[in-house]
Amino acid sequence: MTAASYAAVDWGTTSFRLWLVGENGDVIGERRSGEGMTTAVKHGFSTILETHLAALAAPAHLPVIVCGMAGARQAWMEAGYLDTPAPLSGIVGAAVTVADANRDIRILPGLAQRSEQHPDVMRGEETQLLGAAGSLGNGNHLVCMPGTHSKWVRLTGGVVEGFSTYMTGELFDVISKHSILAQAMVDAGAFGGENKSFLDAVAHAARNPAMATNQLFTVRSGQLLHALSALDAKARLSGTLIGLEIAGALSSARAGSSVCLVASGPLAALYQSALSTLDLKPTIIDADDAVRRGLAAAARSLWPA
Amino acid sequence: MTAASYAAVDWGTTSFRLWLVGENGDVIGERRSGEGMTTAVKHGFSTILETHLAALAAPAHLPVIVCGMAGARQAWMEAGYLDTPAPLSGIVGAAVTVADANRDIRILPGLAQRSEQHPDVMRGEETQLLGAAGSLGNGNHLVCMPGTHSKWVRLTGGVVEGFSTYMTGELFDVISKHSILAQAMVDAGAFGGENKSFLDAVAHAARNPAMATNQLFTVRSGQLLHALSALDAKARLSGTLIGLEIAGALSSARAGSSVCLVASGPLAALYQSALSTLDLKPTIIDADDAVRRGLAAAARSLWPA
Repeated sequence: MTAASYAAVDWGTTSFRLWLVGENGDVIGERRSGEGMTTAVKHGFSTILETHLAALAAPAHLPVIVCGMAGARQAWMEAGYLDTPAPLSGIVGAAVTVADANRDIRILPGLAQRSEQHPDVMRGEETQLLGAAGSLGNGNHLVCMPGTHSKWVRLTGGVVEGFSTYMTGELFDVISKHSILAQAMVDAGAFGGENKSFLDAVAHAARNPAMATNQLFTVRSGQLLHALSALDAKARLSGTLIGLEIAGALSSARAGSSVCLVASGPLAALYQSALSTLDLKPTIIDADDAVRRGLAAAARSLWPA
Repeated sequence: MTAASYAAVDWGTTSFRLWLVGENGDVIGERRSGEGMTTAVKHGFSTILETHLAALAAPAHLPVIVCGMAGARQAWMEAGYLDTPAPLSGIVGAAVTVADANRDIRILPGLAQRSEQHPDVMRGEETQLLGAAGSLGNGNHLVCMPGTHSKWVRLTGGVVEGFSTYMTGELFDVISKHSILAQAMVDAGAFGGENKSFLDAVAHAARNPAMATNQLFTVRSGQLLHALSALDAKARLSGTLIGLEIAGALSSARAGSSVCLVASGPLAALYQSALSTLDLKPTIIDADDAVRRGLAAAARSLWPA
């Protein structure tokens, strides 16, 4: 087996992922857990990181490159923000070094859009963008990165011109758990991108974004008057929020941009289906691959072989 | 004192209001409590009603007219729905009589819009409309009834042609309590309709409804990047949801409708201010007066003196 060259960590709010990368660039070990920032502020970032490194028998002085919420204020060590317009090539130069560590640990910064009208921030997605940019080439790209807080990024020739966050995933979560719509989707299983209620809701919300919070209520009234099933209720809630997000993203996009979807797993399938029903044919890049490639690009730049 | 003629009850999801009305039509006693449907399904509708009637020394055989959630399925006794297009004059004829009661108790029905695309329901607001209609006269009216589930009603010559429910109040509640935005508005007090963050958010959401869930995120990013205060954060959340609601209501309104606001208290002031910032000058009718007048009209029809 090739010797370890560095470890790469994507530290999200509720998830932790670590890859041990060999001298030849191959992944030679991987760890995943739910010890995101929320857990780490209680139990210690260093403790959690060292436990996972030890489990992979990583050498004591192996350097570590980190992106994501570990760099937030009041997290491990503040890594600040790079302001838009931000060349992706500037990210690694703004990395911070964790003080008091027994190894070389760098945390990549986030991006900030300091506009008075449209303030916005990201942490972690900039590293995915860095990894995805190689596959995209120059030109105008509109990059969709769905999730708890979906990001839509306007990327031109390797420069992030601006971006917008939509609270889609979190709104789905709080509405499905805490609102009157919860009772319409009790025990609903998972639905796929081919679900008709999902696709109809996407199309309707994209065409009539102003009616979004009315469309949400039809989850309840549809249950009362048309016996809407729990699965269709859940699909309609999801489709409404995703359709509204896409309407917003397209309304602020530069004409002629090519759409790219950076996502993994079921969310990738759902967004691909939603975009397709609106006649958009995105280039698809796996989000896990993208973040790993972005971290690798940063590591190569920090620690050339 | 004039003798009691009937009692009128507005029984909401979380509120109970009762008026004792004299033979001359004056209110001679009033009770308010938090014993809405949610409480009443546990403790009994009849028990709660009789306790309040006894507190006002109401005669044993005094008839009672009720509107609101007491008539919902699985509440006290199902009062069904009148389907749109629904003449307001038809409401009282569809009232149900509570079985097994020692007095004459009638519950007014709700309204249902059974459209496949736009199913909708209301319970209680139809009685407010009945009470408000007298002040409105004929012609086309767009009636805004803000609340947990805001209703916008298209009323023509006393007929409810259709209506749309927006989840504004409930979304404000679940987002401010359960989402990441909660931490941006910790300990925020009450804001008024003159608050600039509120008015700016109303105008922005009304102009750019597709960007609504992005505008919500700026409550968080505005706190991070521009030190948005807790009060302004709360005002921006509220203004975004109300602006989105108004955009939707106007998009589906009949041209030339006159706008009427049926509301009470702080919510009336907030919506009046929001509508005014969008150059709308609504006729304002107090919601408490409207429901009392609607119940009185039903009582006069059921039990003519």
